[in-house]
Amino acid sequence: MDIGQYMKDLAVAARHAATRLASSSSAERNAALRAGAKALRVAEAELLEANRRDIERAEQDELSEALRERLALDAERVESMAVGLEQVAALPDLVGEVSELRSQPSGIRVGRMRVPLGVIGIIYESRPNVTADAAGLCLKSGNAVIMRGGSEALHSNLAIAACLHSGLLTTDLPQKSVQLVEHSDRAAVGALLGLSEYVDMIVPRGGRGLIERVNAETRIPVLSHLEGICHVYLDDDADPERALAIAVNAKTQRYGVCNAMETLLVAKGAATTLLPRLGDAYRQAGVELRACPVARPLLGAGVGAASEEDWTTEYLAPVLSVRVVAGLDEAIEHINRYGSAHSDCIVTEHQGRAWEFLRRVDSGSVLVNASTRFADGFEYGLGAEVGISTDKLHARGPVGLEGLSSCKFIVLGDGHVRL
Amino acid sequence: MDIGQYMKDLAVAARHAATRLASSSSAERNAALRAGAKALRVAEAELLEANRRDIERAEQDELSEALRERLALDAERVESMAVGLEQVAALPDLVGEVSELRSQPSGIRVGRMRVPLGVIGIIYESRPNVTADAAGLCLKSGNAVIMRGGSEALHSNLAIAACLHSGLLTTDLPQKSVQLVEHSDRAAVGALLGLSEYVDMIVPRGGRGLIERVNAETRIPVLSHLEGICHVYLDDDADPERALAIAVNAKTQRYGVCNAMETLLVAKGAATTLLPRLGDAYRQAGVELRACPVARPLLGAGVGAASEEDWTTEYLAPVLSVRVVAGLDEAIEHINRYGSAHSDCIVTEHQGRAWEFLRRVDSGSVLVNASTRFADGFEYGLGAEVGISTDKLHARGPVGLEGLSSCKFIVLGDGHVRL
Repeated sequence: MDIGQYMKDLAVAARHAATRLASSSSAERNAALRAGAKALRVAEAELLEANRRDIERAEQDELSEALRERLALDAERVESMAVGLEQVAALPDLVGEVSELRSQPSGIRVGRMRVPLGVIGIIYESRPNVTADAAGLCLKSGNAVIMRGGSEALHSNLAIAACLHSGLLTTDLPQKSVQLVEHSDRAAVGALLGLSEYVDMIVPRGGRGLIERVNAETRIPVLSHLEGICHVYLDDDADPERALAIAVNAKTQRYGVCNAMETLLVAKGAATTLLPRLGDAYRQAGVELRACPVARPLLGAGVGAASEEDWTTEYLAPVLSVRVVAGLDEAIEHINRYGSAHSDCIVTEHQGRAWEFLRRVDSGSVLVNASTRFADGFEYGLGAEVGISTDKLHARGPVGLEGLSSCKFIVLGDGHVRL
Repeated sequence: MDIGQYMKDLAVAARHAATRLASSSSAERNAALRAGAKALRVAEAELLEANRRDIERAEQDELSEALRERLALDAERVESMAVGLEQVAALPDLVGEVSELRSQPSGIRVGRMRVPLGVIGIIYESRPNVTADAAGLCLKSGNAVIMRGGSEALHSNLAIAACLHSGLLTTDLPQKSVQLVEHSDRAAVGALLGLSEYVDMIVPRGGRGLIERVNAETRIPVLSHLEGICHVYLDDDADPERALAIAVNAKTQRYGVCNAMETLLVAKGAATTLLPRLGDAYRQAGVELRACPVARPLLGAGVGAASEEDWTTEYLAPVLSVRVVAGLDEAIEHINRYGSAHSDCIVTEHQGRAWEFLRRVDSGSVLVNASTRFADGFEYGLGAEVGISTDKLHARGPVGLEGLSSCKFIVLGDGHVRL
């Protein structure tokens, strides 16, 4: 079969569905989401059976334990997908929301209306729950979605998509609002990236390799999440207990996540009091430390030397680089130079420096006296996230329904003409 | 000289300036703008002298009358540049504005802070006033700007940039906040488009050729303004007098502008009453009409047949294509299919259809009972515009200070850690 034609057919169908979705009611979209959740629960047995086939295949192909763990579904994960759809259905609807409607000197009233982007293409790996989560957010925000999951999860994804379709069937919304690429042909991704005439945004969810390939190959706007090189800066005026709690939590609460701290920066004035205690805490947690020459002796035994490369490495593991800086300016400079514009935190009781940090650190999330681990859509009250953006335009940080939509201008007149 | 190295030096300097601007105060930026306005007035004689050299060159090169007209400066145009800078200085400052700060269940407070994009690259043609207008908006919004004007306006642009620099000199803001490419080497544009590491957004201001070249050659986000194929749809329930006034104004108030109407759509039910009067009005104004078979006889003598090509043509001239449609759905379908997502209007007294149109027409500006000619930054109360976006992400329609900035998340905690 011609994968190019197959993908184009999907895109054309998605564009038609998007037109219908753009004028759909909240009630219709929420009904489809709730019915989809119900269908997931009813189909639990089929879902687990389909997933079993993917797992068996993964074992034959000797995929890593970690990959198989991410791939696996159980009753609990099925239920949490269903709950996720219900939570999205319960979120307020942004579509059609009008804001800032103001009269202008000419007499016309000018405002903004929030509208869906149109067609979203999502390219992701393993985790089958993304199929339900991402489709839910796109549907809620009035977008049609084309999903290309990993071939290792194809059976699971097909089973989940079938539930979403039966949810759509209970409404007048088009089935093609949610489409899954049913072929594991690698060419499908390339074909999707070329369909800029029909697709409004691409959301790649996976490793840096995937993101870079997508950015290199497409003219379609991409929601990029390169990596999470997150920093915590302990200021001279940091409260010692808060500094310890946050610095430990940001690194050790979970290792393999993008909002975990990878580099700890400590102000010279606070280093002698804080670093010894932190060294002990990290050793107890089994975290390998790589530090600058000033920090090393203060952290105690068994601390390696940090190389230039450490400052730009996302470990996603029990490894931490530590650097002593002169103060706020050097900390901000380090973060803006070596960081990935993801999530960075300052611990300080000094109001002025807290706001300097908030203002000058050029990242999607900037935190004061709170662990970087809070940087996600649920903790921010977005309800869910389709990803975390490290770009500067359109959407920064966790991207929820708002990032899947944009605002156009609306103008209300009474026969007004330009003089 | 090595133009590539020259452009990179500009970009590096701009990046440094942007860092400083990101933490600058409104007072500093507004002072620089007001001092720049003053400098323009003081330097009027030098500005006109520099412009004279460009005009002489343009005459030698036999540039078109229209081009020379756009290139020409006089006392009035110099004054309006100065006033423009003062108006921008008087606008509220968006930089650092915090919104939506709300407490979350965990106890952290999460909000948005509006921040500059960083470094803006502007590529434009002839009109020297763009140098002052665009630099003013970028400076106000805390961005560093690299400007590449047309070689035909080089002397004028250099003189204007000199005034902006003397304005910056009265403050502590870096001179490199505003940089003009001082070489007319065509390779400068290509070099600028390759500096994605330093430049955050490119704003091309010129013909479709320029926009398409920029989009094809760069990985930097582009504020695209392809063209303005604007529509007015006269609904069955249109008030005849309003319909006439708006349909005539949208086409004839000014011809060479992107927000002028290029295609008139009329509902079948209103065609017989409205088209004869409109035919007369357009004939009086000297507008050439190209119509569909249904509209042609109703418009009276001397009306040509519209071809498929007419529906996708931006005339920028006293030419109008006219089509009779069955009703709202066909009108919206036509606009979303043939239009350029710029500015489209419905004339109707029917509330339901007015909102259907607002909701479903996928354009940067959607107007009800108001001429498409209102679609610009000044009329919308943005104060000024750096351009009009026909894209869907980040910014749609007229782009002012808001489109030159974006919002990052800020999180305020009291030692909060993730459990």
